[in-house]
Amino acid sequence: MTSQNYELTGQSLIAGKAVTGTGGTTTGWNPSTNEVLEPSYSLLRPEELAEATRAAKEAFDSLRALHPDEHSEFLNQIAANIEGAGDAIVERAMVETGLSETRLRGELARTTNQLRLFARVVREGNHHGARIDPAMPKRAPQPRLDIRQRTIPLGPVGVFGASNFPLAFSTAGGDTASALAAGCPVVFKAHNAHPGTGELVGQAITAAVRESGLHPGVFSLVYGPGSSIGQALVADPAIMAVGFTGSRAAGTSLMRTASERPVPIPVYAEMSSINPVFLMAGALAGEVSELAEAYVTSVTGSSGQLCTQPGLVFVPRGDRGDLFVRTVADSIQNKAGQTMLTVPMCESWRQGVEELSKQQGIEIVGRGSEGDAQNAPAPAVFQAPAASFRKNSALHEEIFGAASLIVRYENIDELLELSHILEGQLTATLHLTEYDHQAAQRLLPLLEQRAGRILVNSWPTGVEVNHTMVHGGPFPATSDSRTTSVGSLAIERFLRPVAYQNFPQELLPRPLHDDNPWNLNRLIDGVVTTVER
Amino acid sequence: MTSQNYELTGQSLIAGKAVTGTGGTTTGWNPSTNEVLEPSYSLLRPEELAEATRAAKEAFDSLRALHPDEHSEFLNQIAANIEGAGDAIVERAMVETGLSETRLRGELARTTNQLRLFARVVREGNHHGARIDPAMPKRAPQPRLDIRQRTIPLGPVGVFGASNFPLAFSTAGGDTASALAAGCPVVFKAHNAHPGTGELVGQAITAAVRESGLHPGVFSLVYGPGSSIGQALVADPAIMAVGFTGSRAAGTSLMRTASERPVPIPVYAEMSSINPVFLMAGALAGEVSELAEAYVTSVTGSSGQLCTQPGLVFVPRGDRGDLFVRTVADSIQNKAGQTMLTVPMCESWRQGVEELSKQQGIEIVGRGSEGDAQNAPAPAVFQAPAASFRKNSALHEEIFGAASLIVRYENIDELLELSHILEGQLTATLHLTEYDHQAAQRLLPLLEQRAGRILVNSWPTGVEVNHTMVHGGPFPATSDSRTTSVGSLAIERFLRPVAYQNFPQELLPRPLHDDNPWNLNRLIDGVVTTVER
Repeated sequence: MTSQNYELTGQSLIAGKAVTGTGGTTTGWNPSTNEVLEPSYSLLRPEELAEATRAAKEAFDSLRALHPDEHSEFLNQIAANIEGAGDAIVERAMVETGLSETRLRGELARTTNQLRLFARVVREGNHHGARIDPAMPKRAPQPRLDIRQRTIPLGPVGVFGASNFPLAFSTAGGDTASALAAGCPVVFKAHNAHPGTGELVGQAITAAVRESGLHPGVFSLVYGPGSSIGQALVADPAIMAVGFTGSRAAGTSLMRTASERPVPIPVYAEMSSINPVFLMAGALAGEVSELAEAYVTSVTGSSGQLCTQPGLVFVPRGDRGDLFVRTVADSIQNKAGQTMLTVPMCESWRQGVEELSKQQGIEIVGRGSEGDAQNAPAPAVFQAPAASFRKNSALHEEIFGAASLIVRYENIDELLELSHILEGQLTATLHLTEYDHQAAQRLLPLLEQRAGRILVNSWPTGVEVNHTMVHGGPFPATSDSRTTSVGSLAIERFLRPVAYQNFPQELLPRPLHDDNPWNLNRLIDGVVTTVER
Repeated sequence: MTSQNYELTGQSLIAGKAVTGTGGTTTGWNPSTNEVLEPSYSLLRPEELAEATRAAKEAFDSLRALHPDEHSEFLNQIAANIEGAGDAIVERAMVETGLSETRLRGELARTTNQLRLFARVVREGNHHGARIDPAMPKRAPQPRLDIRQRTIPLGPVGVFGASNFPLAFSTAGGDTASALAAGCPVVFKAHNAHPGTGELVGQAITAAVRESGLHPGVFSLVYGPGSSIGQALVADPAIMAVGFTGSRAAGTSLMRTASERPVPIPVYAEMSSINPVFLMAGALAGEVSELAEAYVTSVTGSSGQLCTQPGLVFVPRGDRGDLFVRTVADSIQNKAGQTMLTVPMCESWRQGVEELSKQQGIEIVGRGSEGDAQNAPAPAVFQAPAASFRKNSALHEEIFGAASLIVRYENIDELLELSHILEGQLTATLHLTEYDHQAAQRLLPLLEQRAGRILVNSWPTGVEVNHTMVHGGPFPATSDSRTTSVGSLAIERFLRPVAYQNFPQELLPRPLHDDNPWNLNRLIDGVVTTVER
């Protein structure tokens, strides 16, 4: 069925070997049918994790010493292996997640594109941050010694995947790809919502490690209860950084564990965001149906289970705003629910919607219909006046799934005031025309302080993987606003600078040799010095 | 006496105004004579701090919107004002710290050089991290939208100065300079060990803020008890990052406060390091007297009160090592103690030395003599066999001041084993010849993981302020190994990336305009694109 025929074993993959855990079992689950999936997966007990973290530590020095060509080829090989098993991976992911084939094929392509982007980043080597300040033997009062700087990887990284991106933000997803690209071995905590998908991808990575002749500890995939194995992974002294995508409760709990270690480590957690959208007067002056349709599509796509789903839209009071809201109501009524990723997630969405609908000032704008399959609740759009939003922080909370809240505002001053009370966000979006530029100029400085990405006349769902993407933002959107988990800049999360003073050439790392054997752009005496490629 | 005649008022300087605190008073102290210094300083109560943080928040948007030329000139103006009051500043610092005029004149020059380095960094603008991924309207299956990225400053920064660098790492020191360069207003917690020096420098900064026409909230200098005002500053919701240099106990306590806030913030704390030096066989084959003399100078300079003071030296067993140790003994006996910064610091050094001398296996190599002035204890060098060092972590602890421990090792395998048990360090130093290169190659991968800066045939004291310096390192040397607190890279601690998707030119920030009005190097479609200067 697949060209590479990985077979599901129901075991953890530790440093290239299948390992049976003794901490009980779990199984995959088909959320469309509420049926159990074979095989069952044995779970590791926390003390069984040490084999993986020890192997990762052992693998570290050889991984970080790789020549850029070999390093780059390794990432390409993972991409090739995933493509080789692509049919089986997509098939299993469809059954385990309820996501559509189209969506998952697209996500598979994003996953391999992401790995190949990092393969190029590794080959070009800007992430080495190579800098040289040459000696000045005649400087007075004291001579200046030759000092050089480059980055090195932090060490083994513990990665937790997201349920909502079983490929692009799971086993071989953005965190794994950027950590491996930085030269950090990865111990991946398998997501129990898609254990089979995780194993197939884990086998593709494991095969790439073997085929590239690397130390097997470069990658391990461990199955276990999130609460115990997850905490044990973050607390393990061999682990030097953490990548996480998931809930605010789980993310902040891992942050706490990391900060309380004898040696604290950075946690890059992407957690929660309602992704406010600001419809400005000019944008509603013309035809509104396209805008309303695009909004409803962005709210309901992938059953609304996207980190950048627009959960909050500010719409001006008045006729044009009313027309927009009516058009949204018409549109949402034609939408059928799609299966959500897990039963608890669907339950949590239903509860969130019920809670929201009870809040003062909330009215329903429109609801779609329940889907045919299981766990496919009817999408919903609500509306509230600005006063309610201002008073009640329950209206600011993320409801993960296909729900969104429209808040009506009077004028730009009120919009500014409402924006002030927002928490940190992954995105903030403006819909506007030239007519609105002046008002937008007033909003923008605030939105920059609230969000990692600001969009104009587009929708936040659909995250480009490139050199400029910021999938990050102030707490609680993420634990660390100084970074992004998507795009080439993500590699910098796993690096730190080291200075080399007065070194003989022979002892210098290669990125800093005089003859620049890796052909790197370098900062020489403070001047960006580029090379031909 | 000074060209700018700043006068000591004994008050905090909040957003350009002298403010009397109601939380008691403190005074400076002359550690050379044990005499109280005038004037006394009124201390703020925690609730009196809010005026400073609120002003900082108000000043933020205008500071970060400055044109690079104005921004750069502001930093140069601070440097000029400090130079203008240089005589008075040095005179007061000598009295408050017991440091010599030569040392303080050098430190003053380092302080102004540092500000001018950041002025150049701001003008060149590489820290904006400008990136452009142009649109690809014809890409299939979906067009690619134009996305651009730049950094913005985090927000107001709380800075704590070091007692041991009353100029270069205090009021207008590295943390303040890099935060202001990033575009972050600074609320500086005055160091109570040099309150007058702090005030003179604070007035120089305040004058520069005024002369540059900036919002006065760009800088405040607040006096208060470290334990209460310090914690209040880190906990204040307006503060978005912290720079700190000081003890491990104080640093980890601020880290805890920052991580427990409703919105956690980064803390850049530089804390504790014993800066291991590895003397390798080849380096001892020739004349050892110069090496021994340089070691003793590095141990005792500034009364040993330097973050990068070599508190630990690994010396091979055998005749050449014995000769080195004897030469050190001869040299240290001729050294007189110099006044330490404060009475408690001197007490703490005496206690540390007493504790160390009681440990099993420890023997004294040599001691100098007490200095003539007060608080000038006799420098000391100890020796211990590898076995004692391996067993007893009391031998790994920093004794802040002029003391150092020599540990004798058998061979490179033992040296590797001993290095493994070291904590994170600011520096690690190798003394070697070509004969030792092979052994050094084995040590280096480990030292990279233990230290921020690795030196060959030089001494760690004396920190160059340039583009390649890393004054940082793994915990507990610092709280965050991904950064440096000295050198141009330090600016990146206070920045975060923001992405702009599908923006009209008019709404884009200037670093991202098509016509590149600030003449910045930018990453365009992943390619480093440099400009003429």
